[in-house]
Amino acid sequence: MNGRYRETGLKLLSKHGISVGDSIKITIEDDEITGLLMPRYESASEEYIVIKLKSGYNTGIHVGKIKSITKLSDKHQAVASVRTPAVTGNQSLPKVALISTGGTIASKIDYRTGGVHAALSANELYASVPELTNHALIDPEILLSEYSENLRPKHWTMIAEKVAEKIKTDRYMGIVVSHGTDTMHYTAAALSFALQKLPVPVVLVGAQRSSDRPSSDAALNLLGATIFATESKYAGVFVAMHAGTSDDTIAFHVGTRVRKNHTSRRDAFESIDITPVAFVRNNKIEMQQKHPNRLLQRSSDNSFEVNTKFEDRVILLKYYPGFDPTLIEHAVNVGYRAIVLEGTGLGHVGKACFLALKKAVDAGIMVCMTSQCIWGRVRMTVYDTGRDLLDIGVIPLSDMISETATVKAMWALANSEDVEAAKKIMQENLANEISPIIPIS
Amino acid sequence: MNGRYRETGLKLLSKHGISVGDSIKITIEDDEITGLLMPRYESASEEYIVIKLKSGYNTGIHVGKIKSITKLSDKHQAVASVRTPAVTGNQSLPKVALISTGGTIASKIDYRTGGVHAALSANELYASVPELTNHALIDPEILLSEYSENLRPKHWTMIAEKVAEKIKTDRYMGIVVSHGTDTMHYTAAALSFALQKLPVPVVLVGAQRSSDRPSSDAALNLLGATIFATESKYAGVFVAMHAGTSDDTIAFHVGTRVRKNHTSRRDAFESIDITPVAFVRNNKIEMQQKHPNRLLQRSSDNSFEVNTKFEDRVILLKYYPGFDPTLIEHAVNVGYRAIVLEGTGLGHVGKACFLALKKAVDAGIMVCMTSQCIWGRVRMTVYDTGRDLLDIGVIPLSDMISETATVKAMWALANSEDVEAAKKIMQENLANEISPIIPIS
Repeated sequence: MNGRYRETGLKLLSKHGISVGDSIKITIEDDEITGLLMPRYESASEEYIVIKLKSGYNTGIHVGKIKSITKLSDKHQAVASVRTPAVTGNQSLPKVALISTGGTIASKIDYRTGGVHAALSANELYASVPELTNHALIDPEILLSEYSENLRPKHWTMIAEKVAEKIKTDRYMGIVVSHGTDTMHYTAAALSFALQKLPVPVVLVGAQRSSDRPSSDAALNLLGATIFATESKYAGVFVAMHAGTSDDTIAFHVGTRVRKNHTSRRDAFESIDITPVAFVRNNKIEMQQKHPNRLLQRSSDNSFEVNTKFEDRVILLKYYPGFDPTLIEHAVNVGYRAIVLEGTGLGHVGKACFLALKKAVDAGIMVCMTSQCIWGRVRMTVYDTGRDLLDIGVIPLSDMISETATVKAMWALANSEDVEAAKKIMQENLANEISPIIPIS
Repeated sequence: MNGRYRETGLKLLSKHGISVGDSIKITIEDDEITGLLMPRYESASEEYIVIKLKSGYNTGIHVGKIKSITKLSDKHQAVASVRTPAVTGNQSLPKVALISTGGTIASKIDYRTGGVHAALSANELYASVPELTNHALIDPEILLSEYSENLRPKHWTMIAEKVAEKIKTDRYMGIVVSHGTDTMHYTAAALSFALQKLPVPVVLVGAQRSSDRPSSDAALNLLGATIFATESKYAGVFVAMHAGTSDDTIAFHVGTRVRKNHTSRRDAFESIDITPVAFVRNNKIEMQQKHPNRLLQRSSDNSFEVNTKFEDRVILLKYYPGFDPTLIEHAVNVGYRAIVLEGTGLGHVGKACFLALKKAVDAGIMVCMTSQCIWGRVRMTVYDTGRDLLDIGVIPLSDMISETATVKAMWALANSEDVEAAKKIMQENLANEISPIIPIS
């Protein structure tokens, strides 16, 4: 590993015995820069070297501008110390269960590679956000330590069962689930179907920047999620992440109507065709009092519905020009029980797919239609293409987003007697995954 | 066909001998409503019937509230007459070629079914937007009459060759291509790669509402596209559609950085990680004078680059929890030459896919990574998952959107000697599909 340095950059660093992770001092023109040498970005010019400044931000410096370069200390001395203040719990505060599943919010940077590793435990997270002690008595538990791209439907089952178990002890005002952001919205949808009529809020929370970066959103997101878990008037499944760029507001999204819409911004998550149910701004909750969608109120009734099984054999296929219909035939042949299409526009695929789709429907496969547009509703009665697909037996999923539709199809098939019952479930609104239709269009 | 009416709605309509498309009068409480009976929406309650008002908007009326219902005239008399004013061309105006390929902009509503059919010709379109005669002398030609969900890579080749042919006659200030909106952004990307260093603007234009609906965006979009084609200082491929909801502004998006982000709104198209290059507001062009991206200026040099071939054997796969890695193996087995992954977050797929991806790369398949987040850049050096995928040989595509990446992979493979050359092309910025990286991160 040479931090992907090549050519001029690598020559300069080798000459001075400097490796990634070392603390260095660089002189350019009439300025001095001190920081840690970071790996070169794959996509950046070979003539730049990258320094992590004390502010936590990285800067690229053109090799040609460097007048002198000195190693101050090597990488082992450069590792930042981790604060672990003692936590004293106030027993009169509301109790919140914190279930840790992994991801950036539970990870720290590796100064050797500049990358991020799943590392911090729920306990350490709690210790690193002392403000939590003003709002709740937190009961942390590590369930999983996975980047969320590695989570599969069986993990949703594990998380749902753990959440149900915690709620049934009747001790918690709310449940916080820390989670990697990559598939947090899929898990939020899964919990929304697996755990219905919940008496308390279940809040998934992640971070886009690891907790030892100065620009980290981990502490504020966790604090916001905890405040919402204790103070929200609504129960159900929600996602808590930064709202906007100001670093003082957390938004709470309905678990079935949220999407990660940016690769790196802290406000990457957005509610789709719905408004967030609340914001926490400067540690104060601002609840949307009359939400246009059907939201559950908190309740003291612990007889909520727990159905945590998911059927793996569901395939999500995104349509594009040139899409080969034999892919649909392949899905049928290898035993998938449902196909969720991410069609174009109002819910279309090319007519070249019609025969393969008809065969799939005739073979007892549930075929559902969503739109790759993301926003707006599938409406398959407007054009010939849509009407033909309806005639074939393709099920229109209204404004259900494709990620939620895939999860719901997995849940519907695992929790119904047969495919016809599952089809019916797909078209019913269970957890705000379908917005109400207003009769006047 | 009973317009999908069932139960109470169907009974009432049958009793009065009313069919979809008939002009009817309904009395409810102390109001009278006159309009055309439309088909019931699939998703609407069975107790509503749908009327198209004179305003062009539809309204649903609950059967239980209807006091009386009368047929005024049947469907044939209800068809609106089509204006076809004589067009007189001013020979001193700049010439614009209009190539019609189909879609809503070239279609009209069918009063029998309430649906929309591809129908109007380019000539009729021109005739129905008389304001065009103030801005350009239009030379229309019908190339295709297809809903755009039916277009395939071979159609991109046809369109590109027709555009090249028109430009080479040296007679046109710009080219307008009318197109269905469902896959207009895919075609825009295809033309951007097939026709490089263009001397004039090529503007794709569509409509979300057909041209005989009062709320149609067809006329304004076509007029805006024509004004841009004649007055834009930039050459290259662009998409013209409504900007915002005010119905007076058209936005012009870079052909490789635009996406249909709403199923039904007239401002469904959005520029991704870039600003539009211009707006036409009240028929006046507002050009963004200094665009942050590299845009071509108009030129009188007609030696532009024409490479119109596309390789069909490219598969776009969207990753989701539960994604089965054998799908990757299937793609290799059936002879795909490239796999474009729509990964999570910064460009990830679960580790369960690593072995299948390695086999694909070893088999000489080009495997590229984009993000299903849509906005933001893939950065595969941050987490273990990304680094492992880079080690396997997966090619990170920066902020190229997945639709553009799929089209580019088809183009790169068809226009390079081997897969290694194609991989190199994928990582080079040819038509603003990759935004410049700023060294300071």
